[in-house]
Amino acid sequence: MKDLTATALRYEHGELHILDQRKLPGEICWHVCKHENDLVALIQALAIRGAPLLGIAAAVWVGHCATRGDNKEQLTETIALLRSSRPTAVNLMNYLDRLQKLVDGGADKLSLADEVAAIFEEDVALCAAMSEHGAALVAQGDSILTHCNTGSLATAGVGTALGVITTAHKQGKNISVWVDETRPLLQGSRLTAWELEQAGVPYHLICDSMSAGLMAAAKVDRVMVGADRIAINGDFANKVGTYSLAVLARHHHVPFYVVAPSTTIDRHCNAGASIPIEQRSADEVRGASGSFGSCIWSPAGAPVYNPAFDLTPAELVTGWILDSGVYTLDDVIAGALVSI
Amino acid sequence: MKDLTATALRYEHGELHILDQRKLPGEICWHVCKHENDLVALIQALAIRGAPLLGIAAAVWVGHCATRGDNKEQLTETIALLRSSRPTAVNLMNYLDRLQKLVDGGADKLSLADEVAAIFEEDVALCAAMSEHGAALVAQGDSILTHCNTGSLATAGVGTALGVITTAHKQGKNISVWVDETRPLLQGSRLTAWELEQAGVPYHLICDSMSAGLMAAAKVDRVMVGADRIAINGDFANKVGTYSLAVLARHHHVPFYVVAPSTTIDRHCNAGASIPIEQRSADEVRGASGSFGSCIWSPAGAPVYNPAFDLTPAELVTGWILDSGVYTLDDVIAGALVSI
Repeated sequence: MKDLTATALRYEHGELHILDQRKLPGEICWHVCKHENDLVALIQALAIRGAPLLGIAAAVWVGHCATRGDNKEQLTETIALLRSSRPTAVNLMNYLDRLQKLVDGGADKLSLADEVAAIFEEDVALCAAMSEHGAALVAQGDSILTHCNTGSLATAGVGTALGVITTAHKQGKNISVWVDETRPLLQGSRLTAWELEQAGVPYHLICDSMSAGLMAAAKVDRVMVGADRIAINGDFANKVGTYSLAVLARHHHVPFYVVAPSTTIDRHCNAGASIPIEQRSADEVRGASGSFGSCIWSPAGAPVYNPAFDLTPAELVTGWILDSGVYTLDDVIAGALVSI
Repeated sequence: MKDLTATALRYEHGELHILDQRKLPGEICWHVCKHENDLVALIQALAIRGAPLLGIAAAVWVGHCATRGDNKEQLTETIALLRSSRPTAVNLMNYLDRLQKLVDGGADKLSLADEVAAIFEEDVALCAAMSEHGAALVAQGDSILTHCNTGSLATAGVGTALGVITTAHKQGKNISVWVDETRPLLQGSRLTAWELEQAGVPYHLICDSMSAGLMAAAKVDRVMVGADRIAINGDFANKVGTYSLAVLARHHHVPFYVVAPSTTIDRHCNAGASIPIEQRSADEVRGASGSFGSCIWSPAGAPVYNPAFDLTPAELVTGWILDSGVYTLDDVIAGALVSI
């Protein structure tokens, strides 16, 4: 299979390399996947993350297995294992379904490898298209609040919500960014802050609880977030805290946009309520852990409730910025997401 | 001056001992104040915290200085220094004003010591009264969400919002508590979780961003928070994140109560907008630090916005639970807080 290069994933000389995002920004550490269990472990531990990139990593592994000569049964088994690695992000399922269909149809290894490269290059193009559509909505001097990490670490291209932000910056729109830290895993303070520094975009880091006060002080012009899965009625699941921002934005009349590629739409899902929400380990909330160290600050064994995602209903969304354009609630109610 | 004992403050044999709340729950470490600068440093570093307890600690120090024979000028200077230690909590100003008036009137050291003991004992009684009024509003089986720490660590008595919660528990109301961690200084996960364990009250720890999802799932019956300063129109300042909870509670039709003693009312303050909001150091948001260790997880030198408090407007409050009773918005509009 041909070489493929993204910020946090590389396929080179027949080996899949994954950048360990748990260790950023303190350490740049790449893992080589030798077995599908390595990849599943990296996905479950969030060493690799971001709904689009998760799906691409799984697809690249399947392409790798096909290239080395795995047969139909082996490929089907690998796809099933990868499917089960994380329940919420739908790009994973969408890409694996696409490859399974080829496997079922008896595609040879060259066709499978070509399909994987196409998936990768499509994501780059989807990111570029979303970024252009989104940046057109950004006004000169805007302050944009974003959540989690939705940049080049989360996709094969420039990202989703963060791609819009860096694109608007490159267009000279003189923007600034409020980066919320995104507890418990701190993707905002670790990853988004790091990406914005690399891109030279002015930003301030805040705690998740500070957004409301900023909005009340009219210091937020718009909110832009990504998505892990979008239902066809426009409801979507994203990193926990997204729904909170949507409610706060509505209360303060701040436009709230979700930015995602069409591969994040789940056409089998009619409404958000049927999206499974993963519960994660208690220690994530009892403290924090990474290349920066490991701390537990709560009483030992403190009981914890730790959903990784939350659901935002369509009626709180100002616009869905997809690769094919920007959709309003009226568009979505009229069925726009069904036919994309 | 007579001995005085609270969970986090002791005056014994003429010495003021302060429990270092930065180190809880991992370490029980008491500091002895030898000089007013020691106390100011402990207040500014949040080793001692909680609006009522801050004021009491300052009052106890003034009583200590009077007892050892400081003259009127010395006491006036000490009071001025203590006043400036933290700008938002008003109990500090209220108690120091009360003592300054006695100093100005030429009160002897015995009268000053008696006044300090009275302030301490009044706070215990205020807490008990608030807790009874508040617990009467709690229904059997309620799930209560609380923010920051407002318990016996923050007052001379059982606390404000957390005093209501532990009192309702003791009344056999079979309650459970959602404790949000309260970034950046983690008073929820460190202090409130610890106090609830001591009191045997069932709780779960959550991140600050998870409250909205819990409310949407109808898992929160009411929100109860404390206050650092209440304006006479009912607006109040409290730990950052409080305003966010008030907006979320309103959106989800969840009753939202503020619990505070009458000493938290600032009669010189007509509305929340004139309450000064302290900005704190960037490193608090760049990572976390305490007896559990010290971590910086953001890029070195990341720009930070870190207000310690936010303002909640009166119209988002269901009830003000004070020592003199429970007040509605109509009561407050009619001037209830002016005359208390």
